[in-house]
Amino acid sequence: MAWNRKHLLDIESLSADEIRLILDTARAFKAVGERAIKKVPALRGKTVINLFVEPSTRTRTSFELAAIRLSADVINFSTEASSFKKGETLKDTARNLEALSADIIIIRHSAAGAPHFLSRVLLASVVNAGDGAHEHPTQALLDIFTILEKKGRIAGLKVTILGDILYSRVARSDIWALLKLGAQVTLCGPPTLVPKTFEQMGCRVTHDLDDAIRDADIINLLRIQHERQRKAMFPSLSEYTSLYGLNRARLAITKPDALLMHPGPINRGVEIDSESADGERSVILEQVTNGLAVRMAVLFLINGGVGPQEIAA
Amino acid sequence: MAWNRKHLLDIESLSADEIRLILDTARAFKAVGERAIKKVPALRGKTVINLFVEPSTRTRTSFELAAIRLSADVINFSTEASSFKKGETLKDTARNLEALSADIIIIRHSAAGAPHFLSRVLLASVVNAGDGAHEHPTQALLDIFTILEKKGRIAGLKVTILGDILYSRVARSDIWALLKLGAQVTLCGPPTLVPKTFEQMGCRVTHDLDDAIRDADIINLLRIQHERQRKAMFPSLSEYTSLYGLNRARLAITKPDALLMHPGPINRGVEIDSESADGERSVILEQVTNGLAVRMAVLFLINGGVGPQEIAA
Amino acid sequence: MAWNRKHLLDIESLSADEIRLILDTARAFKAVGERAIKKVPALRGKTVINLFVEPSTRTRTSFELAAIRLSADVINFSTEASSFKKGETLKDTARNLEALSADIIIIRHSAAGAPHFLSRVLLASVVNAGDGAHEHPTQALLDIFTILEKKGRIAGLKVTILGDILYSRVARSDIWALLKLGAQVTLCGPPTLVPKTFEQMGCRVTHDLDDAIRDADIINLLRIQHERQRKAMFPSLSEYTSLYGLNRARLAITKPDALLMHPGPINRGVEIDSESADGERSVILEQVTNGLAVRMAVLFLINGGVGPQEIAA
Repeated sequence: MAWNRKHLLDIESLSADEIRLILDTARAFKAVGERAIKKVPALRGKTVINLFVEPSTRTRTSFELAAIRLSADVINFSTEASSFKKGETLKDTARNLEALSADIIIIRHSAAGAPHFLSRVLLASVVNAGDGAHEHPTQALLDIFTILEKKGRIAGLKVTILGDILYSRVARSDIWALLKLGAQVTLCGPPTLVPKTFEQMGCRVTHDLDDAIRDADIINLLRIQHERQRKAMFPSLSEYTSLYGLNRARLAITKPDALLMHPGPINRGVEIDSESADGERSVILEQVTNGLAVRMAVLFLINGGVGPQEIAA
Repeated sequence: MAWNRKHLLDIESLSADEIRLILDTARAFKAVGERAIKKVPALRGKTVINLFVEPSTRTRTSFELAAIRLSADVINFSTEASSFKKGETLKDTARNLEALSADIIIIRHSAAGAPHFLSRVLLASVVNAGDGAHEHPTQALLDIFTILEKKGRIAGLKVTILGDILYSRVARSDIWALLKLGAQVTLCGPPTLVPKTFEQMGCRVTHDLDDAIRDADIINLLRIQHERQRKAMFPSLSEYTSLYGLNRARLAITKPDALLMHPGPINRGVEIDSESADGERSVILEQVTNGLAVRMAVLFLINGGVGPQEIAA
Repeated sequence: MAWNRKHLLDIESLSADEIRLILDTARAFKAVGERAIKKVPALRGKTVINLFVEPSTRTRTSFELAAIRLSADVINFSTEASSFKKGETLKDTARNLEALSADIIIIRHSAAGAPHFLSRVLLASVVNAGDGAHEHPTQALLDIFTILEKKGRIAGLKVTILGDILYSRVARSDIWALLKLGAQVTLCGPPTLVPKTFEQMGCRVTHDLDDAIRDADIINLLRIQHERQRKAMFPSLSEYTSLYGLNRARLAITKPDALLMHPGPINRGVEIDSESADGERSVILEQVTNGLAVRMAVLFLINGGVGPQEIAA
């Protein structure tokens, strides 16, 4: 199959084949990352702009490195020093960046739908690097890539997502990707953060941690998103930890080969203890490494790249 | 003619021929921007430092991209993280950057004359990216470039600059450039922001909007510069808009081919309504695109470039 | 001799031969900085991350340019926008950067020992760009490089370090480097900032300025480190200046060829007056230029470079 999209806005609108093409392309780029010189000329002379309206180091740096390794020129647009203070609209800011002949604009924004909006008003390609509590598609792609690399398949796997589902764009993107590729998805956490309405997406919802993790092949923890919670959704962090925090005792009931994932940054001692985060079953740092390959693949494909065969050549 | 200057500090001291040489060179670089690979090796191995002591994204990004496209290495010097907090003088900071073998220092500063001061104490080339309410020469050059591209000439054109003239470095640079190239310049706005003293520069001053725009070939709007006004110079934004804001009704009396310009960022609904800002006569985004070409030309010439013939070759 | 270290963490653990190898390599890189195209391909395709947890422009920019001139890809990790706000540990942040396949992590941190800690938990190379009041090894190396260039030797020279020794990582690194290479080191300043305990390192300690500078070949001034002093260590800045500030009258008693050094940024009128800072004996700006060459040498060697013969080739 061939890639025909100009933007990467969400996982919801991708087909299973499109997801697979990104993953195959990412696999070829991961091999590039193991060479002595980790660069390819695919985006030479192209301009990529990181428009991060919400603070982020991890994701911004990953996209920046991905673009650099494709030989693109990358500009970081810092909101601190930006025209937003002067009252300019997002649309005007983005159209100005485009007028500087940006080829690809990577946007993170606190408003759900901001990347979709930009994709309708710009000629440049748009990549969603996280929009409000809506989607974070490259995070889901790197999660799927990591699972596939470790387990060899997605279809039929039991994947539990644990924590603050309601406010999590990572959860929404993961759910879409996992279901499209045939996994069984269980969501778990306090009722205020994991409402039953998620069953309508095709997930199982439980508020019982043991029930959620006992048979899981993958346990994907989410960070407690203080910054996106407008009011307290649970009594205290320590109560959350006592009910849903992962630790050695709790992991004792899980399958021995169940993997632990986390999009980072980790709150050690809150959603997971250090022993588990650093243990053999944790693939948290591999997720970071795979994120770079996945983001190279996304930038490559939306820039007109054909697929993995082109990279090997 | 040949370029003989090491710095670009203002428009006031340039000859009409020097302005034309920059514009001709910018035209060649605009063509480079339309190639698949938008880079030329002219400044390879040279170090360009963006020393922005006042916040700016738009202009800093434009200079950064201009330098990157010339293959220079660019360092952004952020004032937030700077030694200014530790009490270092501007001169010491700039001499330290020069000691790191900076070839070109691009400076924006809230103090009028800061670039001229640096040009006297440094061996590196200095480019003024806006100094207080004094000058913003590359903005004027991109304005002139845009007018010339659209109208084919500058001499004899009627150009109206509208808004906060008193506090505007853009207005001062535009006035110098327009008058040197033979345009007729009208300034308009509230008496507190457009004092009669500007007539001494050779401009017409009026406080009547209809009078200012009726015969204009070009209407160049300025942003209301809240940040540079120490006391209120007009009763309220809404009063400003009711008297001087551009909208469809007011534009009805203008020439059908009059162009609308604005240095950005736009305050939509204040100095201009959205319909007019986004209408056919608006060249606001083309100004941004042309700014990149003009800044490439300036960096190229002060680095010893000869002229447009060199770029085509 | 050959370089065998993966990290540059301090001067204390280096041998005199290792220091000399860095200096010889830096000399070759200084020659590169005088070419028209100041770049070499030594680190092409390598990723260098500037992890500056304490604000710094001078040192960060110097390392950034050093890496760029070696053709590395450089990412600046800003603490403002960082995950530290979200409660991530330094170890997790650094391991995440490493998972993005950083080859070299340059760290500045307010906690003494932070680079050593990272070197134990990371596979990447670590360079100490200043840790608390502990060490700032590349500053000492550039100081030694500058002295050697001017005086032709270190052994037997009388070097006076003047000012806030107690809180100065520069002083500690300088002392180690100078003593290892055979200089005689005198420390001078108010008793609260220059305690007698430094005699145990092998230095002479005096609180009498004339005694400290009369026979010195080198007078190395330190900045008064307001930000690292938790309580007032002397009555006032003006009292400090009256007792220990350098000026023309005081320099009259020194050797005519004694050099003045300062790591910057200078507090003009506090530790030194402007006439002396800008005078013929001042090598302050040469220190900055040499810092770039020394940092190129450090990055080159820890990346596996053999020595100066490789650069000339």
